[in-house]
Amino acid sequence: MSAAIAAPASGAVPAAFVAVDWGTSSFRGWLMSPAGEALAESRGAEGMLHCVNTGFAPVLADHLARLRAPAGIPVLICGMAGARQGWSEAPYLKTPARLDALHEGAIQVGSHGDIRILPGIAQARADRPDVMRGEETQLLGVTEAGFSGLVCIPGTHSKWIRIEAGEVVEFSTYMTGELFAVLSQHSILAYAVETTDRLPADSEPFRDGVATALAAPTGLTASLFRLRAAQLLDFQQRTDGSARLSGLLIGTEISDAMRQYGPAKSLRLLRAGRLGQLYETALGECGFAVDAVDADDASRRGLAKAAINIWGRQF
Amino acid sequence: MSAAIAAPASGAVPAAFVAVDWGTSSFRGWLMSPAGEALAESRGAEGMLHCVNTGFAPVLADHLARLRAPAGIPVLICGMAGARQGWSEAPYLKTPARLDALHEGAIQVGSHGDIRILPGIAQARADRPDVMRGEETQLLGVTEAGFSGLVCIPGTHSKWIRIEAGEVVEFSTYMTGELFAVLSQHSILAYAVETTDRLPADSEPFRDGVATALAAPTGLTASLFRLRAAQLLDFQQRTDGSARLSGLLIGTEISDAMRQYGPAKSLRLLRAGRLGQLYETALGECGFAVDAVDADDASRRGLAKAAINIWGRQF
Repeated sequence: MSAAIAAPASGAVPAAFVAVDWGTSSFRGWLMSPAGEALAESRGAEGMLHCVNTGFAPVLADHLARLRAPAGIPVLICGMAGARQGWSEAPYLKTPARLDALHEGAIQVGSHGDIRILPGIAQARADRPDVMRGEETQLLGVTEAGFSGLVCIPGTHSKWIRIEAGEVVEFSTYMTGELFAVLSQHSILAYAVETTDRLPADSEPFRDGVATALAAPTGLTASLFRLRAAQLLDFQQRTDGSARLSGLLIGTEISDAMRQYGPAKSLRLLRAGRLGQLYETALGECGFAVDAVDADDASRRGLAKAAINIWGRQF
Repeated sequence: MSAAIAAPASGAVPAAFVAVDWGTSSFRGWLMSPAGEALAESRGAEGMLHCVNTGFAPVLADHLARLRAPAGIPVLICGMAGARQGWSEAPYLKTPARLDALHEGAIQVGSHGDIRILPGIAQARADRPDVMRGEETQLLGVTEAGFSGLVCIPGTHSKWIRIEAGEVVEFSTYMTGELFAVLSQHSILAYAVETTDRLPADSEPFRDGVATALAAPTGLTASLFRLRAAQLLDFQQRTDGSARLSGLLIGTEISDAMRQYGPAKSLRLLRAGRLGQLYETALGECGFAVDAVDADDASRRGLAKAAINIWGRQF
């Protein structure tokens, strides 16, 4: 286990509960005040994939010790810990699903104390089946009560969500981030991109990729090969390949989302790091009025809202 | 080296030349009669990727010995041996390129005998850069002199080629086969498909995948995730995942090709194995009148035509 731990704040503020964002490949836990402020944090790589071998309860116990959490403190978890292959299945709520009622679908786990896992949301339609687990808590964290609008959450599996009066009405998941990873690492495009941590947040090749996707939104699988061909024929540089691939994939996603959710309009973007900046650039190119909100604390804020809905009277 | 070798035919027919289809990961060589008939065959896994370490000349010498080829016999090669990273670069012909003039672009390699490598064809356009190496020889093999029409060559990198009066005018490459492989093996879809050798040539899930792609041709990256979500929500079975993924990818390719080359009409399909049958099914669903030709011997027949253009007087 590798975990970065901030020392608990000293002083009079008591810990009220622990909030946990338990993803596929990461664990983030926070000791929280009654008002929903983080007093300490513990991060690690013990995501769901790790815990299917070690068990979930021992990993949580280790992090609680690192957080110096009082014995018996309530714990609220969101994310893949509630998947069928996770700690215990927290059945999906079905669309339309009220964000302020997420906590009503929480399940209790473990044999000691009050530990609960929030449910995900499923779009149980045969024509557009879709699922989220973790993003619903981020949505709760970044929307005000009664919010209506379109939200985009970039990531390995990017999500576009239409919310009406605080209710998730419909959503779509795009494999954009995962496609970027598998194509860069495992396909012929490994020869056409340089894996670098220094992909700029904006660049001409990135905008070119977005524009190509918008002009030929059905042509992704051909555009991917052209990325390689363009370099063989000296039209493009390998140093631009990564930005161009990113632009093609993000542009294809936005182009389809515009067909699904109507033409460009205002959109709330959960922005984190360079990926968030790339989406902000691309969405601007596509005519969206982007309301960018910081995504880093979205899960924690959503967990705090849900925790107050559950245990508010006790805090 | 593993090579399957047919014994040379006994009797009076003399060997005139050796034809070699040298791909990225395979070698196929044939001892040929003056009339272009195969007298013996030698196959192996010594493709370009193997030979960049061992050298190309020794691999060819081994296969010539196995073919019991007469010393000094002319050799004609097509495929990746002529790539920049191959034996020696045979520079691309540029579109528009006459198929019956392929042999004029051949380069000579090696220090003994008359060994030549046919060129590939490049579409040197900044807006739609594309390359082929090997398929041009298959095209020569399966088209009659002066052929006009649209040709589809399914594969790892599927190709659609528009030919006018024996001249390759334009073409597009789709990463369909490679996407199927990397998504099945390296993405979350590994949980949604069963790798099996028994994918049927036609099935309801395959046709569903094609229909989904035709109905939402911009939505591939969302449809891919839905393949997983549909199984989590019990709308679909994992046993159908492979056929559905194949249908989605092939349907997306055909849908874009119809935009590029005009609505469905007659098309010559190079059909080999189950993949060829899948394309024939999907193209039929899309309204194409398919003229299916056997692809197995297309390279050899193209090499024979080009060899006769080069050495015909000597045979």
